[in-house]
Amino acid sequence: MSDEPGRLTRLTWGPAWCEAVGLVRGWMEEAGLATRLDAVGNLVGRREGRRPGAPALLVGSHLDTVIDAGRFDGVLGVLLALAAVEELAVREKRPAFALEVVAFADEEGVRFPCALTGSRAMAGTLDPAVLGLTDRDGTTLAEALRASGLDPDGLTGCARKPGEILGFLEAHIEQGPVLEHEGVALGLVRAIAGATRLEVLVEGRAGHAGTVPMRLRRDALAGAAEMVLAVERSARGEAELVATVGRLEVLPGAVNTIPGRVRFTIDLRSPEDRERTRALADLRSDLEEIARRRRLGLRLVPIHEAPAVACDPALLDALARARVRLGLPDRRLVSGAGHDAMAIAAIAPVAMLFVRCRGGISHDPAEHAAPADIEAALAVLVETIVLLSEEFR
Amino acid sequence: MSDEPGRLTRLTWGPAWCEAVGLVRGWMEEAGLATRLDAVGNLVGRREGRRPGAPALLVGSHLDTVIDAGRFDGVLGVLLALAAVEELAVREKRPAFALEVVAFADEEGVRFPCALTGSRAMAGTLDPAVLGLTDRDGTTLAEALRASGLDPDGLTGCARKPGEILGFLEAHIEQGPVLEHEGVALGLVRAIAGATRLEVLVEGRAGHAGTVPMRLRRDALAGAAEMVLAVERSARGEAELVATVGRLEVLPGAVNTIPGRVRFTIDLRSPEDRERTRALADLRSDLEEIARRRRLGLRLVPIHEAPAVACDPALLDALARARVRLGLPDRRLVSGAGHDAMAIAAIAPVAMLFVRCRGGISHDPAEHAAPADIEAALAVLVETIVLLSEEFR
Repeated sequence: MSDEPGRLTRLTWGPAWCEAVGLVRGWMEEAGLATRLDAVGNLVGRREGRRPGAPALLVGSHLDTVIDAGRFDGVLGVLLALAAVEELAVREKRPAFALEVVAFADEEGVRFPCALTGSRAMAGTLDPAVLGLTDRDGTTLAEALRASGLDPDGLTGCARKPGEILGFLEAHIEQGPVLEHEGVALGLVRAIAGATRLEVLVEGRAGHAGTVPMRLRRDALAGAAEMVLAVERSARGEAELVATVGRLEVLPGAVNTIPGRVRFTIDLRSPEDRERTRALADLRSDLEEIARRRRLGLRLVPIHEAPAVACDPALLDALARARVRLGLPDRRLVSGAGHDAMAIAAIAPVAMLFVRCRGGISHDPAEHAAPADIEAALAVLVETIVLLSEEFR
Repeated sequence: MSDEPGRLTRLTWGPAWCEAVGLVRGWMEEAGLATRLDAVGNLVGRREGRRPGAPALLVGSHLDTVIDAGRFDGVLGVLLALAAVEELAVREKRPAFALEVVAFADEEGVRFPCALTGSRAMAGTLDPAVLGLTDRDGTTLAEALRASGLDPDGLTGCARKPGEILGFLEAHIEQGPVLEHEGVALGLVRAIAGATRLEVLVEGRAGHAGTVPMRLRRDALAGAAEMVLAVERSARGEAELVATVGRLEVLPGAVNTIPGRVRFTIDLRSPEDRERTRALADLRSDLEEIARRRRLGLRLVPIHEAPAVACDPALLDALARARVRLGLPDRRLVSGAGHDAMAIAAIAPVAMLFVRCRGGISHDPAEHAAPADIEAALAVLVETIVLLSEEFR
């Protein structure tokens, strides 16, 4: 289901997303779940547990996609959750706690400048001011909600009480190459990396590429090139820190003009906030040294900051023991990408199960996970729920 | 005279340029010169010499500008030539040879993808195929010529016979910071640098900035950054070689995506073709080593190649002796920018006189040359013509 012919684009609150929500809701009801759609568009299908009033284990992910997306990011986690609930029903296993299959709204944040919208609304951490954010056409988020039959006034009512959620399990494609590189089908996410994003402005002096001798130049791009290498180097010594310059623009940008100004971004991520903070401080002084030596202006503007989220040791342990029962190897890794689990961590323990994906490719039509790996993920989810239920007090 | 209100834009064959040509032509005639406009738009004002049938010394530059230009580039050289002829008349000095004040058409090459159009037409080195080149609106050069009352069919008739030109003297602002840096008003151009331009394509692998560990990356921008520094380094040891990366584009260019592809330009210039060729070969092997080490694809595409032009020793010597007579210091330098003199060098000896400009700024409204420096340039031109006339056999 796509908003565009020929490629997959399922933006939250758009026609294809509404259709997908309706389809999955129907499947949930066929599976005997009681469904509801909250005010922001989070779809929840619930089966009560053996013990009345027990909290719910949430399992799921999201149904929205980026533009020209792959078929696995998000939707795989929702369908695995639904399949796990169906499988438990087939085995006539009813956990002590309630189970909720969740499809969060707007994980990707493509249309409006805000992401994890549904999961943050459920966690009660979403600032209602986001309702005033506008898309490219000037439509507000509140208007988009209304247009798809939802109720922006009910936003605060999306928040769940911490006591009613036992935990959240999210299965998701890895979106990276680590599991494939190591020949392992599944990985347990031990933490979701914290991130810092900066915009860096380097100011030199433009000039004619033919007439200004090298010694009289203040070339903003040559300086920025040294800085790009400093960013790369800042992550070289650390196992889990990653550092990226993804965007870089040169002004004026003519073949025969010495660049007068360069603007680039830095994206730093680590599962350890202290490691990220230290790397950032070191990097800042490296960039300042480069700018000073080359007589360049330098400005660093923070544009995003999110702390790391550790996955819950007890949930991770249950996932690990489920794998042992199934004869699968243990492998823990860090999620460098953000996920709904990050938001839900504010109100409940969370853990994630990563599924190997081909070439580490994601947000692309070439995104692929093998059926056998998906089956293994389903088995682990089912076994984990069984284990958690056995131990639930 | 400008095509645009509020800024100076005088594109060849446009209304402001036509008006400027008419004005200067009028001034030439007031000065007693016989004027003609050739088929491509070169304006020539001629005064015969004392000796009938003697060849002409050409003095001048161009009247067209870039978009949002300064007031000195090109036009200064035309007006200095006219003023020199007027000054000689005032002093009642009539050289043995003929004098021609020349205003070349289309030095800048802004509207059509070809530059030095008028001077190359006069040198007989302009491929008539340029008449088919189109501007952004699809108008051909031939149509543009016709629209301004010129005759594209006469293009080959613009070529002058080598024997009828004694030499060409061009005064021009330096368009660089060297004279100002050294506190000298005027410089003699000993050579116009040759140039090589390349487009470089670096191919890595795009990926998620959070999920791909540093050791598994093939980051096209980190590789390109090393290459930019190699380009800069290639010119560091050489006094007169300059090397510039003026344009650099990153794809896909998102803050959270490892760059998969980078495209950048290299502009290499030197007054010594051998030096440039050697630097290019060294640079090529540096870039190949970087690409190999980082497992990146690399493609170098030449986009421009022009050999250096040496100025004529006899004309340079006359200019230098004129300066000595006027008590001015000798200073020789290289022109890193291209000029009409480059084209005329194909059929006659050429030399250039550079006038200091403020901050080395050119192609910008802030372009400026001091009146005292311009007066000095006029005196040198007049004295040089007197000297050449004294020695003319």
